[in-house]
Amino acid sequence: MRLVTLTTDFGTEDGYVGEVKGVLLSRCPEARLVDVTHRIPAGDVEFGAWVLDRTWERYPAGTVHLVVVDPGVGSERRAIAALTGERWFVGPDNGLLTRVAGRLPIRELREITAAGVTASAVSLTFHGRDLFAPAAAIIAELDGGESLGPLLDPTTLVRIDLPLPQRYGDRIEGRVMHVDRFGNLITDVPADWLPEAPLVAIRGRRLRGLVRSYAAAQGGRGGPLLAIVGSGGTLEISMAGGSAAALLSARRGDRVTVSPPGP
Amino acid sequence: MRLVTLTTDFGTEDGYVGEVKGVLLSRCPEARLVDVTHRIPAGDVEFGAWVLDRTWERYPAGTVHLVVVDPGVGSERRAIAALTGERWFVGPDNGLLTRVAGRLPIRELREITAAGVTASAVSLTFHGRDLFAPAAAIIAELDGGESLGPLLDPTTLVRIDLPLPQRYGDRIEGRVMHVDRFGNLITDVPADWLPEAPLVAIRGRRLRGLVRSYAAAQGGRGGPLLAIVGSGGTLEISMAGGSAAALLSARRGDRVTVSPPGP
Amino acid sequence: MRLVTLTTDFGTEDGYVGEVKGVLLSRCPEARLVDVTHRIPAGDVEFGAWVLDRTWERYPAGTVHLVVVDPGVGSERRAIAALTGERWFVGPDNGLLTRVAGRLPIRELREITAAGVTASAVSLTFHGRDLFAPAAAIIAELDGGESLGPLLDPTTLVRIDLPLPQRYGDRIEGRVMHVDRFGNLITDVPADWLPEAPLVAIRGRRLRGLVRSYAAAQGGRGGPLLAIVGSGGTLEISMAGGSAAALLSARRGDRVTVSPPGP
Repeated sequence: MRLVTLTTDFGTEDGYVGEVKGVLLSRCPEARLVDVTHRIPAGDVEFGAWVLDRTWERYPAGTVHLVVVDPGVGSERRAIAALTGERWFVGPDNGLLTRVAGRLPIRELREITAAGVTASAVSLTFHGRDLFAPAAAIIAELDGGESLGPLLDPTTLVRIDLPLPQRYGDRIEGRVMHVDRFGNLITDVPADWLPEAPLVAIRGRRLRGLVRSYAAAQGGRGGPLLAIVGSGGTLEISMAGGSAAALLSARRGDRVTVSPPGP
Repeated sequence: MRLVTLTTDFGTEDGYVGEVKGVLLSRCPEARLVDVTHRIPAGDVEFGAWVLDRTWERYPAGTVHLVVVDPGVGSERRAIAALTGERWFVGPDNGLLTRVAGRLPIRELREITAAGVTASAVSLTFHGRDLFAPAAAIIAELDGGESLGPLLDPTTLVRIDLPLPQRYGDRIEGRVMHVDRFGNLITDVPADWLPEAPLVAIRGRRLRGLVRSYAAAQGGRGGPLLAIVGSGGTLEISMAGGSAAALLSARRGDRVTVSPPGP
Repeated sequence: MRLVTLTTDFGTEDGYVGEVKGVLLSRCPEARLVDVTHRIPAGDVEFGAWVLDRTWERYPAGTVHLVVVDPGVGSERRAIAALTGERWFVGPDNGLLTRVAGRLPIRELREITAAGVTASAVSLTFHGRDLFAPAAAIIAELDGGESLGPLLDPTTLVRIDLPLPQRYGDRIEGRVMHVDRFGNLITDVPADWLPEAPLVAIRGRRLRGLVRSYAAAQGGRGGPLLAIVGSGGTLEISMAGGSAAALLSARRGDRVTVSPPGP
């Protein structure tokens, strides 16, 4: 039994995902496929890396994570399989693994070659189906990636510049990484950076202090907006019973600043 | 083998569902996960209860239904596992089980406690991942919920007021419970309440009689709108080859009245 | 072990797909379900046939493809199970199999009768749940369709007229079959019809020559639009780093013409 998760920007309106799943199951009939999401915005490698970072560690050791957000398909960018901890990651070498590799060392990095995965022709526009799906299936089947292609130097993994939250003295600057379906603004400010009763500023609004839960804020301190430590371990701006994003017209990328409570 | 179905309002645009699935599969590797829907409108407990009611009985005995629409996460609302018939239901105690419990008695009701499901910290914002997923996995693994937490009195299950269809003499008043993707207006008026050739009124339009199928209405009686008994056993207003919802500008919650055919 | 794929227009906003999956798993607990897509536009048989054609052959021999886009549910249209190659197809006999049957002969065609699949009542509005799901489960379980209903003459399979690409001397006329999530315009012009350096015209724009990959076009020949052979083996109009569909205001059905390079 091997789990193969799928995280892509293919959408669910046509047959792309169905083609990928068919290739996976043809090559490894015992694979158990798990849809994470197929709705990463088209070509949005940065968001793909962020979603992957939130999900991969929840899966058991041995899981193969197929991650395809691939605006450079057909270019010189490498196709790779990376082993870190006890999980494999398969996809384009375009920065999708930047966050994962920031947490754990890459134990093995392999280039996926056409010859290593198929005797058929490989398209130059759909490597998700023609290279990555067979590679993931082969890893799931054989419990290793030896046959895929040559070993690469793990330090050559492509990493993208991620705007990181910054500390300037006791002031923190971060940004909104994601607006979720509930209108929560999920920032990149780590919970353990936060002072005890932070002053949070976003889009001209100031929030004082953290609440422990959405519910704790009901009828609470200074209006419906609230600052909270979210389930990903970072600061979130939320609204009890409504959408903070709508109230603030906030979007991904918006800046958030945190400072200690005033005197 | 244990089936675990997932019905949530988490959406499919990010990694929330992927996190939940990872926790389930880490705790019960043999679980077979089935996506029912993740697109319940955010926080819409009433619609979640309705969707659950339409689906749960289609699954085999032994299925665990994970149902998370949880606007009160982090509040005092209880986390529960309920056994009814031969199926388990796991989720917040906020009324999601109102319709299920209206059909079958609750045989066992347990509170899910943090200590019962995990040695880790439990977030106050994502119980779907931190409480309900492990609880569902434990039930799937052990075929029972003894370890989750204390038994509760089944009569204390939270039920929400559902506006029910009413009979006033030979007149019936109901409402539109759902507008489906085809523009069908699915009402809550049970088929067995309907007189033989009902007069159906909705949004100022009157329809005479029932048709047996969409197709039977083609070129039929008095225009493209039709009244029909739908697949859920209730009255539906449909349109042959088009959207009744668009034609009528109808929405969920709209009132429908049924009366006997005139003299 | 039997794979059952699901391709429908049911959407994912409510419980329809969940009902179908429950019936499948109740009748064949060992079935492994694979979502291809549930977002075929409502009632769009032509697009359903196109998506099916792109996906089915990727699955291993023995797969059962459940394909339900069924605007004529409840009419006289037949419910069928068709065996071609080593795969079964189950759905309404309304043309969904036109493309599949154009590639491979139908080896066995059976009518699905209510008596063949269930002792319960069958709705006239949801055959996906009441006829096709049990039929697919029975085939998956028994590895054959004998019990479903009578054999039909395979030549009676309903086929729809598909506007096919045409050749007029050395000029080709085709059309856009699909605009994908990336804004690629996928046409029906087969790659092997294309002259070496085709002149492609669409919506008043002319493109000269084919590129091999999206990446090859970066900073390339005459602007951001490009013509390419796509992963389905047909001509596509794409845009490096953007949406060709948005740039051209192009839609499914738009005409594309191909001619040899000028003198």
